[in-house]
Amino acid sequence: MDIESTIRDVPNFPKKGIIFKDITTLLKNPKALRYKVQEMLKFCQGKQVDIVVGIESRGFISGALLAYELGCGFVPVRKPGKLPAETISESYTLEYGTNTVEIHTDAIAKGQKVLIIDDLLATGGTAKATCKLVERLGGDIVGLAFIIELVFLKARDELSQYDVFSVVQYD
Amino acid sequence: MDIESTIRDVPNFPKKGIIFKDITTLLKNPKALRYKVQEMLKFCQGKQVDIVVGIESRGFISGALLAYELGCGFVPVRKPGKLPAETISESYTLEYGTNTVEIHTDAIAKGQKVLIIDDLLATGGTAKATCKLVERLGGDIVGLAFIIELVFLKARDELSQYDVFSVVQYD
Repeated sequence: MDIESTIRDVPNFPKKGIIFKDITTLLKNPKALRYKVQEMLKFCQGKQVDIVVGIESRGFISGALLAYELGCGFVPVRKPGKLPAETISESYTLEYGTNTVEIHTDAIAKGQKVLIIDDLLATGGTAKATCKLVERLGGDIVGLAFIIELVFLKARDELSQYDVFSVVQYD
Repeated sequence: MDIESTIRDVPNFPKKGIIFKDITTLLKNPKALRYKVQEMLKFCQGKQVDIVVGIESRGFISGALLAYELGCGFVPVRKPGKLPAETISESYTLEYGTNTVEIHTDAIAKGQKVLIIDDLLATGGTAKATCKLVERLGGDIVGLAFIIELVFLKARDELSQYDVFSVVQYD
């Protein structure tokens, strides 16, 4: 299907000059939602995923769906202070300032095969930090899947050691 | 299954004296994840749901799963400033201060049958504000489903005109 036509361009969000790729129009379309999940599942074939990590908060949507369809558990990676039990954290640099992501220390068991999910692959900062969290817990990252990839931001250079998939690419 | 045993008690979170019901231990357990979704699906039988609304951010997890399993679209209700296109908002009172939730104005079409999903039903403030958003857009709320209900906070008094379901209740 023409999945791109279900993604809405919103000009000047979150700031002037940026065209935001809005996936809410995709998510409310049952056919597009199904197509996106099926494409991500194809990427997972043969990977024997044990657990799916979804990155807060839009990554929770596809992450939960992949976990359920693969018969795995789901693990959230969240912003600081949101996870109630013992966590580890990773910080990464943004254009202005830094961001931090956290995971529960008991979220992943050593040697588990982990699939990481988010809605958008931009510079790859969040994804890379999430990879570090998973690897610090002993997880084996078998792939990362995204709905949208902004190819011109070259996140794959940051993630070159991983198997990366995106449903829609923008050059 | 004994779903309660998969929910973790975290004492003194988010503040001293509160015992937080942590569902991350449920979500990473594939059997518990499946059980929870199946229980929510039973609640939806005969409701002919058109669209599922999930409340940021843990409501995105079950919300996406229900939408997918019901063959519906998914709509996020989010904190202020997160949704990129035109929104409407509702504010509600907390113990200290107020909170606001937003929805895209084109998220729901008039007359659509709407299921609202969140992880926790506490005082019902967020749920009630979400009901108002949906009804302002002309949606017909056929039910609200939660993983956990804190029965002693009496949210059902606030939501008495709706069909409310929870997988696990704490008295």
